[in-house]
Amino acid sequence: MIKPRTPPGVMELLPRDQIAFDRMLDTIRRTFEGFGFLPVETPVFELSEVLLTKSGGETERQVYFVQSTGALEKAGESLPELALRFDLTVPLARYVAEHERELAFPFRRYQMQRVYRGERAQRGRFREFYQCDIDVIGKDALSPRYDAEIPAVIHAVFTALGIGAFTIQMNHRKLLRGFFEGLGIEGSRQDAVLRELDKLDKRGADAVRETLIGEGFGLAADVADRLMAFSQVRSEGHADALARLDALGAGTPLFEQGRDELRAALERLRAMGVPESGYAINLSIARGLDYYTGMVYETTLDAHPQIGSICSGGRYDDLAGHYTKSKLPGVGISIGLTRLFWQLREAGLVDTADSSVDVLVALLDDAGLDHALALSQRLRAAGLNVETQLEPRKLAKQLQYADRAGIRFVAIRGEDEAARGAVAVKDLRRGEQFEVAEDDLGRTLLVEREQLRSMP
Amino acid sequence: MIKPRTPPGVMELLPRDQIAFDRMLDTIRRTFEGFGFLPVETPVFELSEVLLTKSGGETERQVYFVQSTGALEKAGESLPELALRFDLTVPLARYVAEHERELAFPFRRYQMQRVYRGERAQRGRFREFYQCDIDVIGKDALSPRYDAEIPAVIHAVFTALGIGAFTIQMNHRKLLRGFFEGLGIEGSRQDAVLRELDKLDKRGADAVRETLIGEGFGLAADVADRLMAFSQVRSEGHADALARLDALGAGTPLFEQGRDELRAALERLRAMGVPESGYAINLSIARGLDYYTGMVYETTLDAHPQIGSICSGGRYDDLAGHYTKSKLPGVGISIGLTRLFWQLREAGLVDTADSSVDVLVALLDDAGLDHALALSQRLRAAGLNVETQLEPRKLAKQLQYADRAGIRFVAIRGEDEAARGAVAVKDLRRGEQFEVAEDDLGRTLLVEREQLRSMP
Repeated sequence: MIKPRTPPGVMELLPRDQIAFDRMLDTIRRTFEGFGFLPVETPVFELSEVLLTKSGGETERQVYFVQSTGALEKAGESLPELALRFDLTVPLARYVAEHERELAFPFRRYQMQRVYRGERAQRGRFREFYQCDIDVIGKDALSPRYDAEIPAVIHAVFTALGIGAFTIQMNHRKLLRGFFEGLGIEGSRQDAVLRELDKLDKRGADAVRETLIGEGFGLAADVADRLMAFSQVRSEGHADALARLDALGAGTPLFEQGRDELRAALERLRAMGVPESGYAINLSIARGLDYYTGMVYETTLDAHPQIGSICSGGRYDDLAGHYTKSKLPGVGISIGLTRLFWQLREAGLVDTADSSVDVLVALLDDAGLDHALALSQRLRAAGLNVETQLEPRKLAKQLQYADRAGIRFVAIRGEDEAARGAVAVKDLRRGEQFEVAEDDLGRTLLVEREQLRSMP
Repeated sequence: MIKPRTPPGVMELLPRDQIAFDRMLDTIRRTFEGFGFLPVETPVFELSEVLLTKSGGETERQVYFVQSTGALEKAGESLPELALRFDLTVPLARYVAEHERELAFPFRRYQMQRVYRGERAQRGRFREFYQCDIDVIGKDALSPRYDAEIPAVIHAVFTALGIGAFTIQMNHRKLLRGFFEGLGIEGSRQDAVLRELDKLDKRGADAVRETLIGEGFGLAADVADRLMAFSQVRSEGHADALARLDALGAGTPLFEQGRDELRAALERLRAMGVPESGYAINLSIARGLDYYTGMVYETTLDAHPQIGSICSGGRYDDLAGHYTKSKLPGVGISIGLTRLFWQLREAGLVDTADSSVDVLVALLDDAGLDHALALSQRLRAAGLNVETQLEPRKLAKQLQYADRAGIRFVAIRGEDEAARGAVAVKDLRRGEQFEVAEDDLGRTLLVEREQLRSMP
């Protein structure tokens, strides 16, 4: 006998949680499709040679490699080395470069699949987790207007998920780099300073300031102060965001370009009807060092800042330089859904009340079986999810089962109801019972279900 | 520069095909949920020790193993050996045994995920492919009524997929084994004879008969003839199926039990309103040798018998004997969707006409941008999938793009229309143009979309 268990570092769900998780996946997908993104799925493994062109470094050390199998070896096939994808960006780059001539650009794709990283075992850290990504890829060029559309997608996703108030925080790498330029901080020193400013939350303002004016950096005190002041800029509301951008004063051409694009993005968001409470500028956001080149986004839950960013991304200059000579600039975001779900569940914010099953058609005795089967089929044809009780049990047991399983309705046809052509319905959610003509049952339950769903 | 390419043996789709594939996945899932099955997802890898309890043999030689990563090794973690799942049945067994006390039985689960097998490279054979499975698992016992419900699910799935007429072919292992018993064929000889009868299609009746009466088997000629006659029984229609079961004559108790269960299944299907053209008995079906113990199913497309079975399964006695002492009998089916999709596409049966995007909101000049963005948002709120043209281009180019992408509607707001508070709509599917008040646009397009969808 082998002990049944999953490998460490994976999140496996019981059905009630899985239903809640799938609802989140469905909501995200529906929203991505609402904005005209097209689905892409890639294989779980890629050729190692293709996957690991970049970096080396930390990422590569977290990669899972896949070994050839006995059957293929025996067949004498020469077996390429495979590795599990560790994100959806490298597979996207490979996909777009491989299918370049068959795709229309700007190419809008969404992808929602699991990725694999050999992270150290830790509570809330997963080695297998879902990423839900969108990207818009241009050929040769991509208008900054696409960057402005992205926060509207983020807003729609988290509004639809209904997990509480959130703020999309935006910054612009050109604004950042232009500001550094203006202070005489150039090239790789910019990266070092950025890295230091990134520690503001962790180390606190005083410690970071000390480091910046210390030996390693050697910045003048007033330069350090201006850096600190800059990276502490946060806006509240639309007008305030514009005012704070204005208040930064004049800057280098790069700085002005970044500011113009940020301003334009704010205006587009307003045009799209995104409420101003939903977005802000936050000039401390940098999102990694070399990858992003324009707008960058982070999203935080207002009531749960400790969760950190739940949706991040930005604009990059060239997606697939390792695979094609074409220049493919893009902009995209990613939601790490497995971790988000885990955190929401820890915080008690996952609603697992309702099963995916709407109705249990009860069975009181064997004689009623064929009628129960036929009734179930009619309810399915009406659009309901139906489980049929196939073996008679005490009604109390059937009700108890439905209640525990989160099935809202139980349809019961006793002798009296049968004589009247009716069905008794227990609404376990509302704690009510009512009778309805059998012919109207499907429609009635559908209406009830929709009413409850549309309640706040 | 690295050549961008996928590993051999995987099916990666361009967006139009992916949309069609996802529609099939959605349809299957909706149908499974309609019958009250609950979602389960398991990790792509399992502990090798847990996954490979069974068989050894061919399956194990096709398994992909996953190697520990550098980062984890460095961290000094002791790394268990992992392997990619090769089906969804072993993970289900592990899942049910692991969560036995948290699940309600009979446990109805569906699972739609990719599985991995190191098959030899061959056209139409994949090393990564989707399986769409349902199973009902009982604790200690499971009524044969669950076996009778399964063909109704199969019928609903393939009706909803709309890929042509199909027949669910049924047999019963007890009928088979009972018939063998009656002929004095016992134990492992039953398996050998079954294996031989399984070759009927390939080798032909004469060759199989020769083998059965030849030295290896040494069956009497009349026994061989009765075997051949038995395994050639096929029914056409409900009454014929019952009549052919009757015509088999009396048999052993096992035989009679199998016949009773088959009869009952036929009656339940009729009660559920499954049309009699959709199912038949076919006494040649055996589905593997030791695993199945009751009803067995295969499903074939009437117009494409060469595709073989597109949905198969059956009843088994004990799901998880390797993991738990509890007896867990079950019944289930599996659809190999990747292969089915590939075959349908080869046969020209995949409809890729419609994009998931319903509307392109055109942009004629920069001044119209904010209005186009706002209009797009209103259409999304109405439930439509909308792409916004973010940079002005010649209208002809925008129409051409929509046409090639399979986007049915293009919403155009020129000066004239704007003055009237209206929008012009090109319906590329019908080749028509019409004008509609902007406030009515969402509703109008929704209605048009539903009308077309409900057309035969």
